[in-house]
Amino acid sequence: MKKTVFTILLMWWVAFNIHGQQNIFGPKQLESPVINQDNSVTFKVMGPEASKISITGDWMAREGFNTPYQALQKGDSGVWTYTTPPLEPEFYSYSLLVDGVRTLDPANAHAVRDVASLSNVFIIEGGVADYYKVQAVPHGTVAYRWYDSPGNDKQRRLAVYTPPGYENSKKKYPVLYLLHGIGGDEEAWLGSGRARQIFDNLIAAGKVEPMIVIMTNGNVSQKAAPGQSDAGFVTPSFMLPHTMDGKFEETFVDVMKFVEDNYRTIEKKESRAIAGLSMGGFHTSFISRNYPDTFDYVGLFSPAINVQAPDKETSPIYQNRKEKLRKQKENGVALYWIGLGEDDMEQLYNGVQKFRNDLDEVGMDYVYKETSGGHTWDNWRQYLVEFSQQLFK
Amino acid sequence: MKKTVFTILLMWWVAFNIHGQQNIFGPKQLESPVINQDNSVTFKVMGPEASKISITGDWMAREGFNTPYQALQKGDSGVWTYTTPPLEPEFYSYSLLVDGVRTLDPANAHAVRDVASLSNVFIIEGGVADYYKVQAVPHGTVAYRWYDSPGNDKQRRLAVYTPPGYENSKKKYPVLYLLHGIGGDEEAWLGSGRARQIFDNLIAAGKVEPMIVIMTNGNVSQKAAPGQSDAGFVTPSFMLPHTMDGKFEETFVDVMKFVEDNYRTIEKKESRAIAGLSMGGFHTSFISRNYPDTFDYVGLFSPAINVQAPDKETSPIYQNRKEKLRKQKENGVALYWIGLGEDDMEQLYNGVQKFRNDLDEVGMDYVYKETSGGHTWDNWRQYLVEFSQQLFK
Repeated sequence: MKKTVFTILLMWWVAFNIHGQQNIFGPKQLESPVINQDNSVTFKVMGPEASKISITGDWMAREGFNTPYQALQKGDSGVWTYTTPPLEPEFYSYSLLVDGVRTLDPANAHAVRDVASLSNVFIIEGGVADYYKVQAVPHGTVAYRWYDSPGNDKQRRLAVYTPPGYENSKKKYPVLYLLHGIGGDEEAWLGSGRARQIFDNLIAAGKVEPMIVIMTNGNVSQKAAPGQSDAGFVTPSFMLPHTMDGKFEETFVDVMKFVEDNYRTIEKKESRAIAGLSMGGFHTSFISRNYPDTFDYVGLFSPAINVQAPDKETSPIYQNRKEKLRKQKENGVALYWIGLGEDDMEQLYNGVQKFRNDLDEVGMDYVYKETSGGHTWDNWRQYLVEFSQQLFK
Repeated sequence: MKKTVFTILLMWWVAFNIHGQQNIFGPKQLESPVINQDNSVTFKVMGPEASKISITGDWMAREGFNTPYQALQKGDSGVWTYTTPPLEPEFYSYSLLVDGVRTLDPANAHAVRDVASLSNVFIIEGGVADYYKVQAVPHGTVAYRWYDSPGNDKQRRLAVYTPPGYENSKKKYPVLYLLHGIGGDEEAWLGSGRARQIFDNLIAAGKVEPMIVIMTNGNVSQKAAPGQSDAGFVTPSFMLPHTMDGKFEETFVDVMKFVEDNYRTIEKKESRAIAGLSMGGFHTSFISRNYPDTFDYVGLFSPAINVQAPDKETSPIYQNRKEKLRKQKENGVALYWIGLGEDDMEQLYNGVQKFRNDLDEVGMDYVYKETSGGHTWDNWRQYLVEFSQQLFK
């Protein structure tokens, strides 16, 4: 009887998982990745017929634009293996090349999409990475909501994080608007950015005020992330029209109206923050300047300041920059925070330095934090951890 | 100047997408899959160094437990291609084998996880598949919520679909509890099941009453789906302990308490439905019998009735089945609905027929719908479309 039971359970497994038979019928069920005692990581791929398997991951040093790869070694039974050196605590992503074709690790079901590519993920615990992992703490709620954007003549999608306890209180909360970079969308900060875990963990630790976090889609030509609107399963692209022509900034009023009409927010400047990475830093700088006296907290993470898409000079949003910045300073800002990696791309790095001159010229107080590294998610997660602890206090 | 702008945009693209360089620097950026005019589908993979690439997808006929594969043909410039015959409208999933290693399609960023495997997806529009695609209709909201389960001594995670307009009314709604199969979790009906799209589209069409849909995690040894709890990025498994030992059914009271305390539900039998697929059908049959006079609508989709895990006879939930079924009949049920594929596994198929005898014996009215096909998601989506239209009317 027990055997019969097992057989039918096995049949279910196959029926439920028709593409995964390899895993149970192969000579050995592999576990990959394996995080070793010393924080080195071992990857294993079953590939008796493959000629070459290599791996790339964001722990590897990059030289210019060449993606670094490490070869896996073929061992007994056709199992290919590679072990990294001990890694620092971090949320890592990686992918494989199997005989030249980019693939995921067949043994790892955990992946995030960044722009048009899925990559597998794992976490080395400790340090700041403990903010990126799911911990046994109270969890906030994430919902994707659709809002009416008359300025774009469409319904659009955004993500809302409400802190633990939101649903069971009458309390009003401050709001952080958190913007993605070029090629991203309303899912980016929740995927690669680990924003949900960061807020759950920092709120539980008492380091961050409970707040509502709104993650928008800054590509006004889209209603929603690829696959989430009636455009269907389109290929994600970073070459979208109208990402930096002022339309997103102009129509940000539609976002704020939806949020303040639908959530228990404190509708005051001292309870509103806005921050963004790269293109989102560019958007943030202009939104915070063009919505006078609206945001007391402004965060620019590796901002693409002074980097302009070809068609962007058309909008009044981008006119009279210096005067608007001066006005913003006069109105007062509780925190104007800039984070930048010392190895960021030269034009972007220089653009930020030039913008700092503008800030100095109008007398705006600001915090400038230059870190190691470049234009990457490890920095943006870290900036969010630092920035969010300074809000609404 | 335009060139400089383009260069820095390209630099961003690379920085944002370090594993995806192939796509833009390869000899040709491939689009895959391409849905042709006649609903055939063409897959393309760039693989000049690969020796063999094949594809498996759920449009292919299965023979027993052998996963069917079709070879891609290598053409000019190292591009491998395969075109299917014209396909029926449906939500399809597929994966590739590159020199024996299971992979995803590197050009398709859209994937769902089913148990331990990610598979790429696409839709052939028309017919029932129009309920599975995202349409330009009002969208409900999905939120993953954590509820207290004293019966399991932990906080657990479930998914909640609230219909369009829920947030902006004071109205109370009926509730459907929707349960997954073995190896699944609270994400299954939203991934492979397309439940969100099915309800958005059927509600917009006026075919389904606006309702709240609760998608639980039936594996009581888990707090949440793999990767979503402090257990970390564990490998999903179908061999979880305590999935069919009565504990889930016993502690379903914790789910209902959370839902009725936290959502505007109509707390009446005629406004409660419960349904589930496979193991979820098994759970559904016992929950609906053990919570007397609680559910007016019961849906069993390919239910694993009379299929028992080795350790399951311990719970009082499974005792006195016939008496409880008779009591359920006496209390009255508005709809007792069973869907089953004619090609389902023999033991399961026979188990359902045996259960029908029990229903006849106690005089329970029920609907029995036998369809083509077997123990697969295309049937379960179809059953949900049919079942949901009969609720709360």
